Amino acid sequence: MAKNKQTAILLIHCPDKQGILAAVTNFINVNKGNVLYLDQHVDYEQNTFFMRIEWDLADFIIPRDKIEEYFFTLFGQKYDMNFNLYFSDVKPRMALFVSKMSHCLFDILSRYSMGELNVEIPFIVSNHSDLEWIGEKFGIPFHVFPITKENKKEQEEKEMALMRENNIDFIVLARYMQIISEDMIKEYPNKIINIHHSFLPAFIGAKPYHAAYERGVKIIGATSHYVTTELDAGPIIEQDVVRVTHKDTVKSFIHKGQDLEKIVLSRAVEKHIDRKVLAFKNKTVVFS
Amino acid sequence: MAKNKQTAILLIHCPDKQGILAAVTNFINVNKGNVLYLDQHVDYEQNTFFMRIEWDLADFIIPRDKIEEYFFTLFGQKYDMNFNLYFSDVKPRMALFVSKMSHCLFDILSRYSMGELNVEIPFIVSNHSDLEWIGEKFGIPFHVFPITKENKKEQEEKEMALMRENNIDFIVLARYMQIISEDMIKEYPNKIINIHHSFLPAFIGAKPYHAAYERGVKIIGATSHYVTTELDAGPIIEQDVVRVTHKDTVKSFIHKGQDLEKIVLSRAVEKHIDRKVLAFKNKTVVFS
Amino acid sequence: MAKNKQTAILLIHCPDKQGILAAVTNFINVNKGNVLYLDQHVDYEQNTFFMRIEWDLADFIIPRDKIEEYFFTLFGQKYDMNFNLYFSDVKPRMALFVSKMSHCLFDILSRYSMGELNVEIPFIVSNHSDLEWIGEKFGIPFHVFPITKENKKEQEEKEMALMRENNIDFIVLARYMQIISEDMIKEYPNKIINIHHSFLPAFIGAKPYHAAYERGVKIIGATSHYVTTELDAGPIIEQDVVRVTHKDTVKSFIHKGQDLEKIVLSRAVEKHIDRKVLAFKNKTVVFS
Amino acid sequence: MAKNKQTAILLIHCPDKQGILAAVTNFINVNKGNVLYLDQHVDYEQNTFFMRIEWDLADFIIPRDKIEEYFFTLFGQKYDMNFNLYFSDVKPRMALFVSKMSHCLFDILSRYSMGELNVEIPFIVSNHSDLEWIGEKFGIPFHVFPITKENKKEQEEKEMALMRENNIDFIVLARYMQIISEDMIKEYPNKIINIHHSFLPAFIGAKPYHAAYERGVKIIGATSHYVTTELDAGPIIEQDVVRVTHKDTVKSFIHKGQDLEKIVLSRAVEKHIDRKVLAFKNKTVVFS
Repeated sequence: MAKNKQTAILLIHCPDKQGILAAVTNFINVNKGNVLYLDQHVDYEQNTFFMRIEWDLADFIIPRDKIEEYFFTLFGQKYDMNFNLYFSDVKPRMALFVSKMSHCLFDILSRYSMGELNVEIPFIVSNHSDLEWIGEKFGIPFHVFPITKENKKEQEEKEMALMRENNIDFIVLARYMQIISEDMIKEYPNKIINIHHSFLPAFIGAKPYHAAYERGVKIIGATSHYVTTELDAGPIIEQDVVRVTHKDTVKSFIHKGQDLEKIVLSRAVEKHIDRKVLAFKNKTVVFS
Repeated sequence: MAKNKQTAILLIHCPDKQGILAAVTNFINVNKGNVLYLDQHVDYEQNTFFMRIEWDLADFIIPRDKIEEYFFTLFGQKYDMNFNLYFSDVKPRMALFVSKMSHCLFDILSRYSMGELNVEIPFIVSNHSDLEWIGEKFGIPFHVFPITKENKKEQEEKEMALMRENNIDFIVLARYMQIISEDMIKEYPNKIINIHHSFLPAFIGAKPYHAAYERGVKIIGATSHYVTTELDAGPIIEQDVVRVTHKDTVKSFIHKGQDLEKIVLSRAVEKHIDRKVLAFKNKTVVFS
Repeated sequence: MAKNKQTAILLIHCPDKQGILAAVTNFINVNKGNVLYLDQHVDYEQNTFFMRIEWDLADFIIPRDKIEEYFFTLFGQKYDMNFNLYFSDVKPRMALFVSKMSHCLFDILSRYSMGELNVEIPFIVSNHSDLEWIGEKFGIPFHVFPITKENKKEQEEKEMALMRENNIDFIVLARYMQIISEDMIKEYPNKIINIHHSFLPAFIGAKPYHAAYERGVKIIGATSHYVTTELDAGPIIEQDVVRVTHKDTVKSFIHKGQDLEKIVLSRAVEKHIDRKVLAFKNKTVVFS
Repeated sequence: MAKNKQTAILLIHCPDKQGILAAVTNFINVNKGNVLYLDQHVDYEQNTFFMRIEWDLADFIIPRDKIEEYFFTLFGQKYDMNFNLYFSDVKPRMALFVSKMSHCLFDILSRYSMGELNVEIPFIVSNHSDLEWIGEKFGIPFHVFPITKENKKEQEEKEMALMRENNIDFIVLARYMQIISEDMIKEYPNKIINIHHSFLPAFIGAKPYHAAYERGVKIIGATSHYVTTELDAGPIIEQDVVRVTHKDTVKSFIHKGQDLEKIVLSRAVEKHIDRKVLAFKNKTVVFS
C-alpha cells in the first residue's frame, strides 16, 4: 500500500489505558497527516494495547526527523509505550541465509527481482557452495562460510562482521540448516525469521517430515517464526498446512511440504518488511 | 454406497507379493460377485499390501456363511493374510461415551436419528449426568457411572459388563474426559475412537487449547484416533484445522475448535462404520 | 464476550472523514464507558468508514434510553452516519425456516439448546411437516405452511403475520427450499440469512452439487448470504470449502457439502446475532 | 517415484467389465514386470474403468518396443480400451507460454533448473518481450511473437511451426494473456494446460479478481485446466483457494491469488508430466 507516497508507520504497544487510540489518531489528524491505514488490538488478558498506524507525510506539519522526538515526548513516556517509527521510503536491509535447498531462495529472489519486496538484499550467506549459481543468476553476492564444530564460533563472527558492515536490519533463514548461536540471536532479537518444516510445536528439531510420517499424521504443515535461544520455540508469524494420506511417502511429504515452506516464509518476510508484525512475549500480532 | 443391496466387504492386509490383487478380484469375479468398490494400497517401505473390496452378494455362488472359510483356505493362509469379512446388513454396535460437553454428542445423534449412520447405538455412558436430557430427547438409554480415583476400576468393570451384555463392537469417546484404562483398551483394540482437541502430536494431554493459545499458534486443529495405551498416541484416522489470529482468545479457540471436533469425529466414526479404516502399526489406511 | 455484563454495541458506517474514530472513542471514554471491543475498517475505494464498538454500561453516565438520541445529535448528523445501537441483554428474535433436510436445523438447535446463541427462537416454519418431530424434541413450536404456486402469496402473508405478532427481528433459511418473495425480502432487508450449497457465485440456483459434479470441480463450497431480490446474489457473510476428487459422486458431494453447510450457516448466524456483520452495497464487513 | 529405474506406465480407460484389472495386472506379473504403482477407479455412472499402472522394465520379458503391440492385441481390442504407454526415461517436451506476469514462470523454471521436473523445456513463447531477461537468466530460448488482431492467425502458425520443429508434446500457459485459437487447441487436445485466476466456474473470462472483489466473496481461488474451445470450460486438473476479508482490496486479491496460481499450475504440470492425469468427457481422473 502507498508504494509511491512517502508515508510514516508507527508500531506501538503499551499497557492498555482509556484514550490511547483517540490520542494517537488525533495527533496525526490535527497535524495534517492523512491516515492511510489503522489497525489496533487490545489483549485484555495481558492488558496490552497494540497499534499500527500509517499516514501520508505530504502535508504533515511536523518535520520528518522530529516525529520520533515529538511522539515520545507527547505520548511515549506518558503511556509507557514501546514504539517504533518507520518510513516507507527507507528500505530495510536483509541478509539471506541458505544451505542446500533452493525452493525458498528461489521464491524470495523471484519476488525481489520483480520489485515486489520493499527491501534490499545486499548478499546471501551459506554454509555450502551448492546454491552459489543461483546468487549469480540473480546478481547477488554469495558468501560461503563452511561450518564445522570447531570453526562455528569464528565463522559466525565473520558473518556478523559482514552484516554490521552492510547495516543489515534483519536475517531470513531460508532453510539454513545450522542452529544459530546465542550471540547472533541477541544481536538480532525478533529480527531473525526462520522457516521450520513442520506444524510447530509438533516435530521440533531435525527431520520433521520423517517424524510426521512415522506418526501417521493426516495433515502436514510449515511454520515461520522469529528465532529465539530456545530451538523452534520463538514467536510464530505464519503457519499453513496441506493434507496427506496413507498413499504419501516421506518423499512426497517433503515435496508437498516444500511448496508450503516457501509460501509461508515469503508471507512472513513480506509482513515483516511491511512493518506489520509486532512480537510480544513470545507471540506475534500480525496486522492485516 | 450399496445401501439397499446385500454386500460383502473384505478388509485385507498382508506381506506384498505379486498377484494378490489379481487373485482376489478373480476369486470374486469367477464366483459371480459383482465388484462395487475396490481400492488397494501398497506400502513399499513396509512391503505390505492393503485392500478393501466390496461386492454384491445377489448372484455370488458361495453361501454367505462359507465365504470366510473359503477365503481363508484359498488365500488367507497362502498369502499370510490378516483379513476381516463384513456384511452390509449387519450393523456394528457402538457405545457412546460422553462427559459434560454436548457438541460431539449432538452431532452424532442428529446423524443417527436421520438414519445416516449404518450403526446401532444401544446406550450412552457418562461419568456425569449433565447430558442425560439429550439421551432422553433422542430416546437412547443413558447410563451414569460417576468416577473417582477410588472407584474407577470398579466402574469400568461395570461399563465393560454392560458392553458385553449389549454385544458392543466399538466405542466412541465423544469428548469423554477420562483416561481409559488398559483393560478396556485391550478388550477393544483399535476399536475405541477418541477425539482430541488439538492437532496431534502437538498439545498432548489436558487443556490443549490453553497450551495452543500460550504458544501463539496461527492454526488450531482436532484429531480423531484409535485409543492405545499410550496417551493420545494411537493411530490417527482424521484431522482438520482452522485459522486463528492474535484477536482470538482461549474462549474463541474453544469455540472454533468445537466445530472442528464434531466434524472430525463424525467423519472418523463414519469411516469406521463403513469399514474403510485399516489400522496397521500405529497408522491407518483410510479408504476413500 | 461480555456475556454477563450489560454492554452497548454500536455498528456504524459513514463517509470517511478525519477524526471520526477519535471522536467516537473519546465520547465513550469521557462518559465513563469502558471499551471492551473496538474494530474499524476504512474502505478507501468507497471512501467509507465502518466501525463496531462495544462498551460496558456499568459506569456509563448517559442513561441507556438516551444514548441513541445523544449519539445522533452529537455525531450521527454531523458525520452523516448510518448507525445502529444494540444492547447485549436484548436478545434478537429469530424465525427459523426449513424444508426437508435436517442437518442445519439440528446444528442450530443443538447450539441454541445449550445456551450458546444469544437469541430467541419463538418458532420454526416449514413448507413440509417432515421435520416437525425435531421441533417437538426441542420444544419449539413448528408451523407448517404447505406452498403451491396457487397459495404462495397467501401463505407468505400468513408467515409474515406470524412474524409480526412474534416481533421477529431476522429470519434464517436453514435449507428452506422455496424462493422468498419480494414482499418478505423488503420487510426484512439484510435480515434474511440463507445458506446456499455452492461456492457462490458458482452454481447459482437449483441442484448446485449436481452442476458441480458435472463440471468436474476439485473443490466444493457453501455460502451464507443475506437474501436480496436477485437469486443467490445478496451480500456474502461466510463461505467455506472442502476438497473432492474423481472418486466422489453426487451423493458424496452432498454428504461432504452438508457438513460445510451447517457450519457455514451457524457461523454466519452467530456473527449476525453478535452484531458483527455490517452489510453495505452488496458486500459485508464481518468484524472479528 | 522410480526416478532411476526404467519403468513403463500405462494409462487406460475403457467400458467397465469384470476382470479387466485382474487381466492387466496378471499380464504384467506373468511377464516378470515388477509393479511399482497401481491405482484404478471405476466411474459407475459412466460405466467406465480407469487405471494407471507402472512397472519396472528390468526383468520384463516383452521387449520395450513390442509392449504396445502386445498390449493392444491381447487387451486393447478385447476391452475396447483407450490406452497410452509411456516410458519414464522418455521426457515429454513442453512449450511454455507467458505474457507479462512472472510468478508462474519463475515457479516452473526454479523447479526445472533444480531437475525436479521430468521434462524438457526447449523454449519459451511470449507475446511480449518483458520477461525475456528471465529466459536469459535460466538459459532458455525466448521467442517473442507480438500479437494483434490482424496478425494473430499468422503468428500462431509460426508458433505451431516452431512447436512441430521441436517435437513439443504439450503446452503450458503460465498466465499467457491471449485466447488460444481453435487450430492450436485441435492440434493439442487435452495437451494445453492453463491457469485461470479464479475458482472456476466462477468468474470466467477477463479480470476475475476484480469481479470477485465486486461480488464480495470471502474466498478466492485458482484453477488449472486443459484448454478446450470453450473459454475456461475445459477439464479441471487442480484448484486451490485462500481466504479474503473485507480488509482486502483488488490489489491484495491479486497478490494473494498469485501465490495460489503458481502452486496450482505447478501441481497440475507435475501431475501431467508424471502421467497421472486422464481426461475423460470434460473431467479428469488425477491419480495420487
